[in-house]
Amino acid sequence: MHNEKSNQFLVELQPIGRRIQISGNKSLLEAAQLAGVDITSICGGIGICGGCKIQLIHGELSPYTLEEQDTFTEQDIQNGFRLACQAYPQSDVIINIPPESLTTPQRLQLEGHQTEIPVEPTIRTIPLEIPAPSINDLRADFTRLKDALATTVPALEVEYPLLTTASPIFRDADWNIKAILNSNRLISILPSQTPTIVAGIAVDIGTTKVAAYLVNLENGMTLAQGGIMNPQIAFGEDVISRISYVMSHSEAVETNGMRIMQERIVEGLNKLIQTMLDEVHQKNPDHIEIVDAVIVGNTAMHHLFAGFPVHQLGMAPYVPAVSEATLIPAREIGLQIARGGLVFLPPNIAGYVGADHVAMLLATLFQYKNELAYSNKTVVTLDIGTNTEISLLHNRQIYSCSTASGPAFEGAHIQFGMRAAPGAIERVQISKEGKIHYKTIADQPAVGICGSGILDVIAEMYYANILDEKGAILNHHPRVRKPDRYPEFVLVSEDQTGHNQAVVITRRDVNEIQLAKGAIRAGIEILLKEAGIQVQDIDELIVAGAFGTYIDVRNAMRIGMFPNLPLEKVHQVGNAAGTGARYMLLSQFYRDLANKIAKEVHYVELSNHPKFTEEFSKSLFFPKKDLP
Amino acid sequence: MHNEKSNQFLVELQPIGRRIQISGNKSLLEAAQLAGVDITSICGGIGICGGCKIQLIHGELSPYTLEEQDTFTEQDIQNGFRLACQAYPQSDVIINIPPESLTTPQRLQLEGHQTEIPVEPTIRTIPLEIPAPSINDLRADFTRLKDALATTVPALEVEYPLLTTASPIFRDADWNIKAILNSNRLISILPSQTPTIVAGIAVDIGTTKVAAYLVNLENGMTLAQGGIMNPQIAFGEDVISRISYVMSHSEAVETNGMRIMQERIVEGLNKLIQTMLDEVHQKNPDHIEIVDAVIVGNTAMHHLFAGFPVHQLGMAPYVPAVSEATLIPAREIGLQIARGGLVFLPPNIAGYVGADHVAMLLATLFQYKNELAYSNKTVVTLDIGTNTEISLLHNRQIYSCSTASGPAFEGAHIQFGMRAAPGAIERVQISKEGKIHYKTIADQPAVGICGSGILDVIAEMYYANILDEKGAILNHHPRVRKPDRYPEFVLVSEDQTGHNQAVVITRRDVNEIQLAKGAIRAGIEILLKEAGIQVQDIDELIVAGAFGTYIDVRNAMRIGMFPNLPLEKVHQVGNAAGTGARYMLLSQFYRDLANKIAKEVHYVELSNHPKFTEEFSKSLFFPKKDLP
Repeated sequence: MHNEKSNQFLVELQPIGRRIQISGNKSLLEAAQLAGVDITSICGGIGICGGCKIQLIHGELSPYTLEEQDTFTEQDIQNGFRLACQAYPQSDVIINIPPESLTTPQRLQLEGHQTEIPVEPTIRTIPLEIPAPSINDLRADFTRLKDALATTVPALEVEYPLLTTASPIFRDADWNIKAILNSNRLISILPSQTPTIVAGIAVDIGTTKVAAYLVNLENGMTLAQGGIMNPQIAFGEDVISRISYVMSHSEAVETNGMRIMQERIVEGLNKLIQTMLDEVHQKNPDHIEIVDAVIVGNTAMHHLFAGFPVHQLGMAPYVPAVSEATLIPAREIGLQIARGGLVFLPPNIAGYVGADHVAMLLATLFQYKNELAYSNKTVVTLDIGTNTEISLLHNRQIYSCSTASGPAFEGAHIQFGMRAAPGAIERVQISKEGKIHYKTIADQPAVGICGSGILDVIAEMYYANILDEKGAILNHHPRVRKPDRYPEFVLVSEDQTGHNQAVVITRRDVNEIQLAKGAIRAGIEILLKEAGIQVQDIDELIVAGAFGTYIDVRNAMRIGMFPNLPLEKVHQVGNAAGTGARYMLLSQFYRDLANKIAKEVHYVELSNHPKFTEEFSKSLFFPKKDLP
Repeated sequence: MHNEKSNQFLVELQPIGRRIQISGNKSLLEAAQLAGVDITSICGGIGICGGCKIQLIHGELSPYTLEEQDTFTEQDIQNGFRLACQAYPQSDVIINIPPESLTTPQRLQLEGHQTEIPVEPTIRTIPLEIPAPSINDLRADFTRLKDALATTVPALEVEYPLLTTASPIFRDADWNIKAILNSNRLISILPSQTPTIVAGIAVDIGTTKVAAYLVNLENGMTLAQGGIMNPQIAFGEDVISRISYVMSHSEAVETNGMRIMQERIVEGLNKLIQTMLDEVHQKNPDHIEIVDAVIVGNTAMHHLFAGFPVHQLGMAPYVPAVSEATLIPAREIGLQIARGGLVFLPPNIAGYVGADHVAMLLATLFQYKNELAYSNKTVVTLDIGTNTEISLLHNRQIYSCSTASGPAFEGAHIQFGMRAAPGAIERVQISKEGKIHYKTIADQPAVGICGSGILDVIAEMYYANILDEKGAILNHHPRVRKPDRYPEFVLVSEDQTGHNQAVVITRRDVNEIQLAKGAIRAGIEILLKEAGIQVQDIDELIVAGAFGTYIDVRNAMRIGMFPNLPLEKVHQVGNAAGTGARYMLLSQFYRDLANKIAKEVHYVELSNHPKFTEEFSKSLFFPKKDLP
């Protein structure tokens, strides 16, 4: 909020997620520097180098300077581009820092455990030698193609763009072509002579991060992988704020929120695809024809990508517009793959248990030996985020729920919270002697603290008796101070940070983590109850997703977020949703399985569950200190 | 051609089709007036009223005047708009006269014989009351729709735009909706409360003229009908010149000939649809949802509308890209009907026997009594144009061919030829005493002569012994004169015409008609031979299409274009292609029948037919004068 008296403004730096309060006589470049965010500035802030280009998303800035007028086109100015060194806040503002203006790239989650699965993709490539037309054979171009495919594809359907483009290809290729089909739908035609890699992309669209894989559909190899921040962040950090943005921009065509969201993510993906193609082409000059795409995401990301309405996701009872698996022509949404290509969107389970969770279940709950089978184990699998999706497999039944764990682990609502970017504290230890050890990403001076660091510091404070079991900060530690009467724990002192401010943990921060971990634990407990089993029945706990990969599992148990389990039962599997998406790209069998899972899952709605409030209250406190 | 010596230029006036040679010191307005084409000019040619707006298609004109700069926007100027009174030719030019600049609208062919057929359209309208979502019923919007349709439409498919738009409609309508399906594809959703007429359009795209019908799909009534000139005329009068245009504009995106052709015809149709809707709404305020479209045209028009490549139609062996019946989402081509609507394109038979001929066969060769059956008669059915498509039904077999009759009957290659516009001579009689009677369209002073008039005058000249059987103009008639040593027949003298020039018939004109009628007659004879029958076996001769409606059938027999048949065996049925299109709009049965016909037809290729040259030579001369 804007504080009138002190003429202080809140500057929110996206997509990093860092916020800083500064006075109106500080430029945005200074604000970023104070917040420890490294924006490129070669000329030292005199408006010449153009390196500190940023984009105003919300709020008011000082008028454009002459230097800026020289730098930007009319189009740029319409889009709110500024030089950070020339612009001063005149209200609370949100600004977006494009990747090229950041000196160090952000850390993105890409790796996922890859199991070997057989390559049996939905896509078929069929080489054909078709007789050319002659005075004695006057069949139309597509009739001769259909006749040539008659035995292999009896019910051929042709995607419209093929009808408009194939005739010259047939002739240029002397009627020696490869027909590429998605089931019985013709999606691409290539000259047989041109060396070509037939490829597909698997994408996991997270609310914050997007991970993509370019995969060779003939041998299953991942040719390239890449990641970007979700460009929709500029319109809201979390699902709810993006839905609100759409709801409040529903009228005009040009500024329609739905359309903007949809265009931004597709634009981002198109760029990412191009980057991956360029990378492969540095080693291999063959033409790469991207003929397929599998896109997963939570239900809101799924809808915003596909252009499906999200209003009803923002209002009780929070139902999706579309939950069944959907094939959408890539051209309908502007995704730049083969002109006839079809995008596969796996099913959603519920408004807050999306296709990404289905993909994760595919990658975690099944074992591929000679044939695919449900794991015989009892498995809890979860992906922690603003909403944490949890599933329990027991006796070949799957129980799933979503729990509102809030954005604390993404750095929001935490005073010094930030995303996993350079300068973020990601690991904390407090020794028996009370000495504090911490590690920052890229070993930069501490700027703030990211999810895994917050989890660590709370667990370590509790086990070092700086917190009691209710979450109160106790006074006896030398690093606890009491400004404004409320005790806070100094994790990094002023002189050690990147911005001359101490990084502290407040009672409110602790409380946010209690709410988050309590919600997750309550979700697990409810699912166990639904299946009629106990914690000790769990054979395996699988933690997926970006945050889950970096956390210290023991600390998660120490604060009670996870039940106490032998550490060997816990597996951190990285981007399992991305892995599941790749499986669906490489195997029609996994697409069918996704449909089966989504239909058969026992979805447990927590918001009206009779036991949820009780479990949640119980889970808020910290458990007994019985872990090493 | 531009004649350097006399500084004379050829001005071609489109879409009328009239050409005139004028000197460079005459304005385009004067040129049009001299040619008898009435362009609006309120200010009398001083560049003030803006009524004489025309568009330069080809060639060079004098620079823009100040008056024009005041009249036109930059956009207009880029598009080549001029004031006819201000612009002077500086080369041979082609100009397009927009309808609003013509004082009298052109005559368009719309009427077609309408037989009663049962209304069993492909489109289904299914009213539904769907349970609203609640905390106890969390199904996604489209899952609940699918469940509600489960018994009627087990294999529901949903067109993409419905997925992006239906959710708010469901809620605004309190889940009381009408689902509109094309077979099993959901193409529209309407609130049950809103009074709505579910309609479709049937369109016959001719090379010159476009006729459209707006039809109520619930009761089969034609709500409105309308016609426009085919806007592609600006890029070539006939099929071949349009294909050439596309072939010579194949590179750049903005000026891509295919794209321009496709956009122009769809734009024209969209306007025509709007005009018809406005007409209906003057009487009935109910919402009209156009959910279906059936478009017929010759193969080239079919391809240019759908965006299919036409290069191969312009080169031997002249095969279509697509000949089977095709369903194209209207949104893929920009046709403004219901967002999920699908356009049905009936099959083509060959490169020069198109879907319009199939539609015509549907409307002429079948009898609808209790059930549909092939006519038991032996029927010749034809549509005369630049290419004349002819079919022969005999013994339940259909033989079809296309014959290159040339554009003479459309007024091209005839010195005073023009289309059927006001001032065109459409009827001619020469009495026994040698006196000439003629009638012009709209009873305007004679400007030129259109197809039916040319046919008449040739037949009358022959029977009045002004022509011999080889087509030579004989000298003994007082109206025959010999400028430049070649005799010509003065049909209308200078003082009687609209442009102070006599309308004459030259030896070349006669020759053009001989070529045209010879080609048609040869086509008929070849089909008879293929079926192994004689002229006297013909039970019925059906003449369809615009030109066929207006001709004097007896004169067509007198010059040998048609075989001698009792007049009662000849039927002129108007726009039978449009009627067939309406049948396919109103009955899935007729769509299936179209597919059946297109597959079963015996297509006879004349270009390499062993007997064609012989038949054609025989048919060039005029037959014995044995008709009254």
